[in-house]
Amino acid sequence: MSKKKKIEHYPLEQIESPEFLKDLSYDELEVLASDIRKDIIANVSESGGHLSSNLGVVDLTIALHRSFDFKKDLLLFDVGHQCYAHKILTGRSLKNIRTRKGVSGFIERNESPYDIFESGHSSTSISVADGLAIAKKDEEDKPYIVTLIGDSSLLNGVAFEGLNFTGHFNLPLIIVLNDNGMSITPTVGGLGKFFSKISTSSAYLETKSAYRKLLNKTRLGKKIYLRSIHTKNVIKRWLVPTTLFDNLGFTYIGPIDGHDIRLIEKCIKRAKKSTRPVLIHAKTRKGFGYDKAMVDKEGYWHGASPFHVETGEPKNMHQGYVSYSHVYGELIYETIRTNENAYLITPATPVGANLMAVAKDFSNRFYDVGISEEHALSFAEGLALANKLPIVSIYSTFFLRAVDQLVTDLARQRLKVILTIERAGLVGADGKTHQGYFDNAIFFALPYVSVSMARDKGMARQIFQNASEEEKDVHVIRIPRDYLKEDEKELDYSSLKIGDWLTLKENNHKIALISYGPILNKIMDRLSSDNIDIDVYDAIYQKPIDVKLLEKIAKNHETIIIHDAYSTRIGLVDEIIYELSKLPYKNKIVELSIPKGYIERGSIAEQEKDAHVSVDDVIDAIKKNI
Amino acid sequence: MSKKKKIEHYPLEQIESPEFLKDLSYDELEVLASDIRKDIIANVSESGGHLSSNLGVVDLTIALHRSFDFKKDLLLFDVGHQCYAHKILTGRSLKNIRTRKGVSGFIERNESPYDIFESGHSSTSISVADGLAIAKKDEEDKPYIVTLIGDSSLLNGVAFEGLNFTGHFNLPLIIVLNDNGMSITPTVGGLGKFFSKISTSSAYLETKSAYRKLLNKTRLGKKIYLRSIHTKNVIKRWLVPTTLFDNLGFTYIGPIDGHDIRLIEKCIKRAKKSTRPVLIHAKTRKGFGYDKAMVDKEGYWHGASPFHVETGEPKNMHQGYVSYSHVYGELIYETIRTNENAYLITPATPVGANLMAVAKDFSNRFYDVGISEEHALSFAEGLALANKLPIVSIYSTFFLRAVDQLVTDLARQRLKVILTIERAGLVGADGKTHQGYFDNAIFFALPYVSVSMARDKGMARQIFQNASEEEKDVHVIRIPRDYLKEDEKELDYSSLKIGDWLTLKENNHKIALISYGPILNKIMDRLSSDNIDIDVYDAIYQKPIDVKLLEKIAKNHETIIIHDAYSTRIGLVDEIIYELSKLPYKNKIVELSIPKGYIERGSIAEQEKDAHVSVDDVIDAIKKNI
Repeated sequence: MSKKKKIEHYPLEQIESPEFLKDLSYDELEVLASDIRKDIIANVSESGGHLSSNLGVVDLTIALHRSFDFKKDLLLFDVGHQCYAHKILTGRSLKNIRTRKGVSGFIERNESPYDIFESGHSSTSISVADGLAIAKKDEEDKPYIVTLIGDSSLLNGVAFEGLNFTGHFNLPLIIVLNDNGMSITPTVGGLGKFFSKISTSSAYLETKSAYRKLLNKTRLGKKIYLRSIHTKNVIKRWLVPTTLFDNLGFTYIGPIDGHDIRLIEKCIKRAKKSTRPVLIHAKTRKGFGYDKAMVDKEGYWHGASPFHVETGEPKNMHQGYVSYSHVYGELIYETIRTNENAYLITPATPVGANLMAVAKDFSNRFYDVGISEEHALSFAEGLALANKLPIVSIYSTFFLRAVDQLVTDLARQRLKVILTIERAGLVGADGKTHQGYFDNAIFFALPYVSVSMARDKGMARQIFQNASEEEKDVHVIRIPRDYLKEDEKELDYSSLKIGDWLTLKENNHKIALISYGPILNKIMDRLSSDNIDIDVYDAIYQKPIDVKLLEKIAKNHETIIIHDAYSTRIGLVDEIIYELSKLPYKNKIVELSIPKGYIERGSIAEQEKDAHVSVDDVIDAIKKNI
Repeated sequence: MSKKKKIEHYPLEQIESPEFLKDLSYDELEVLASDIRKDIIANVSESGGHLSSNLGVVDLTIALHRSFDFKKDLLLFDVGHQCYAHKILTGRSLKNIRTRKGVSGFIERNESPYDIFESGHSSTSISVADGLAIAKKDEEDKPYIVTLIGDSSLLNGVAFEGLNFTGHFNLPLIIVLNDNGMSITPTVGGLGKFFSKISTSSAYLETKSAYRKLLNKTRLGKKIYLRSIHTKNVIKRWLVPTTLFDNLGFTYIGPIDGHDIRLIEKCIKRAKKSTRPVLIHAKTRKGFGYDKAMVDKEGYWHGASPFHVETGEPKNMHQGYVSYSHVYGELIYETIRTNENAYLITPATPVGANLMAVAKDFSNRFYDVGISEEHALSFAEGLALANKLPIVSIYSTFFLRAVDQLVTDLARQRLKVILTIERAGLVGADGKTHQGYFDNAIFFALPYVSVSMARDKGMARQIFQNASEEEKDVHVIRIPRDYLKEDEKELDYSSLKIGDWLTLKENNHKIALISYGPILNKIMDRLSSDNIDIDVYDAIYQKPIDVKLLEKIAKNHETIIIHDAYSTRIGLVDEIIYELSKLPYKNKIVELSIPKGYIERGSIAEQEKDAHVSVDDVIDAIKKNI
């Protein structure tokens, strides 16, 4: 302890580039790592963000920046959300991270020359690195190409395809596996078991593991182990277990302590000498440096909302309100409880989707399949084939990984599945790589798929029940990132059928507004407070549309305003315009929908303004046409 | 030889169910297998179809049907196109297979109770089997669940996700790996190398392999080997190599001779006793029984057009014509030849897309990545990041596997990639699981993506050149399954820019027809022979559309007919209707496009009629409006 007191704290705000790291001693680095973790905790507690994984990779990130020159060498972050320490070390402050005032929570090419590849979703970094390696393979002064990837990401199919290709072409990547054993929720999969096997001596090839353990304990031991990795003799074969990575053509180094900067650096040195691809398996502790996150077994601290550092309690931003996710979480819980044929499947997002109660109480019909969106849907297909009722909870943005399964298998065979699409529409702080408004393009290209969104509890219950009662086909319920009053009285919509719209206001006004979702509640309030008297319709079902009501609307109005704050116009807007072109409707059509593009991080209110779908935009459009 | 003469030929046409198999001796089965292969060759030579893989799995299929009762047990074919022997053994004739007069070339649930799962694309069967296994896990008289999967399919990411899940939950699947070493083209990947390693004694852990080889040579040896697989003692651990499958939690049996029915049955017997998932690794010879297909190293006999059995020569159905694939194959070849920054990537379809010349002459810039569509696009992204020019050739239907990569990574970062989309539109004999008209829904949801289709050689050259010359963004060139005259004079379109349409005929007629692609040539011929005088426009670029020309068209016409024979209306049709709604155009709109649905196998002409997009349909629509 007394030794540590002498160590200077390197002021984080003075960092301009990672070059200073080379002048620090390991003791100083330890202090720096701790300061970086404190800084991450402080800023995430203010702005929200990815906490646990970022705390876990601080030491690895320092070791990487000391071992390479990433002005020349190429560093790819798989899942960009583990880049907070990297941001600090490359001269960026985390203050107001994920807001418009601060830096992005992901890798961002126009923030820094050290950010070369914007990874939104997981598991693509190895394939991208392959492309870079092949592009640069004949260059004279070749850069090292390094990827940092988490264990959960590595279990996704794309990562496997990348590993396989890397091995086949013997591309000299250095892949650093950040294995914290539970990247989002505890890692799923046979390979996950395998990871823990090769990290604990108890279960797997006792002698080999014991040998490794022994060697890792002493300095000399480490040296011998590091050597033996490269020894091609028979003894080595018996002593180092054959891993998946060996089979794929990799040199495997590990598992090593991912918080031991000196050891990591030594392994990297070894890796640099290899002519084959290398995988360095580093074990880290998720949430390292924040006790509440370290004991978290379920992933609550993966993506944190603003919180009080001392207590860990969330700063309640929505006092008296509950999220739509929460409402659907309860509906799903009820369905699983009362229908023994119902199963819940989610690809690594049970916390984000408020499904942990199901996980706890009905573990035999709850399947968190990890980051395996494609598997999630094919697995659901198998359950549906056997006449079960699979409910798949998946984020809109991650659903894009499983499009083929929906188009080619599920919808085509008219199998019955309920898809609850989380984070539909604008998503706020996660920004452009995670926007939830591209899914409709798929849903609307297919037959046998219904699409709906509710704007209160009773409506949510009814559309969920309608979906449950259907005998076949895919029923998509899109869940917006919004909140409703906790004590709201639940309305009865029992006469609502699939494809029905509702008339909210009708006084033979010449202007009709067709909209849906929670924003429509806010529009109704504004119409009332601004004393604007137009006709308003709720397109609860965006697909199929209520053609009969639309015909009536077309007959009686001079202007139809179509408003979709949760999708591009591929969806409700194009569908209505198409129907009107057949009717034929000769009057005016005004449309407000999310543009086909990528809207930056910000609050959802800011993003609604960017997209010109805010309440103000709707009121303006109405006023222009009165 | 004299012994074999005594064996009766079981008449294939009398087969009603696979039950008869149990009464046959192994000698009789050998004759039966040979007869089935001859029947497959005869029928595929008439109707076209998947040849090599079907010839390879005959013995495996017989062994499976003898070992299980698939009225109760569940058999999943991964990639349904390996099911020809299965169809024969379950009482279906292959006569006219893949046409409307015969059976489907894939698994088809309404053809037979033995067809339980319609697999269109590869690699999903393990995940589906997982669903079935979990659905049935508490049933008293549980069925065995068996999947038959090829080595190339197993290398896809979805299959890996399925294996991983199976191992984690210890689901007692029996996975039969049909390893012919080159499922479409020679298997790609580190794991592919690994497969060949564990199948030849030369390279891999000599002692273990030699042990296995030794044991496999004699009857007693086989017995010992089969026993040792289940022995949990130390000796076994040293003697049987640790495979990927062991690591994932599987019992691994193999490699075994996939043409030795007796041995396969023994392994299945072992597998049935296992409480863990089992993988039986069977080596087969692709094309077994047809000498020309057996020596095929490049995959020409994977999907065969009708051919003369004796010579192997194709029956030229298109004398004097070349396919659009062929035209683009040449354009791509030229680009690769003249631009050293250009790279060609294709996921296992270089033969189908006429790209083997590039493979041969520019192997250092040609990457067949195997069935890894997601990897294909992420890999292209890496090349683009390094300022190379990646051209990705991918079938429309298989592109659905890589949607997320396009949406979240490629288009968003405005990286420059040329996507040549093969089999765009109606695909003919492959039918409903392989239709190529869903891709546009994605392309049209995004910014930074252009989409075009040519209807002659010169136009193809120009749109390809336009794409090559752009500095950024994704340029999609959709390639229809159609043909053009070999000796056609090449026209000059050098003034054509991205987004331009062409006026083909304009006489101030009140009707305008907007269409594109090869079918427009046929429409022009019909208009001329039927003396119909309307205005006609070629929407060469479906995205972005030629708004200026459209405005002119809208101004001067009373009826606009929009015709898209290569897409659902999410694409050109909805785009035009949307623009017209803004103009505002008050006159009539008629649209003909492929309905949002799944059109059955048949000739493309038959499918055009089903979809109401044929030349006749267009002429009818014109006549109704004159």
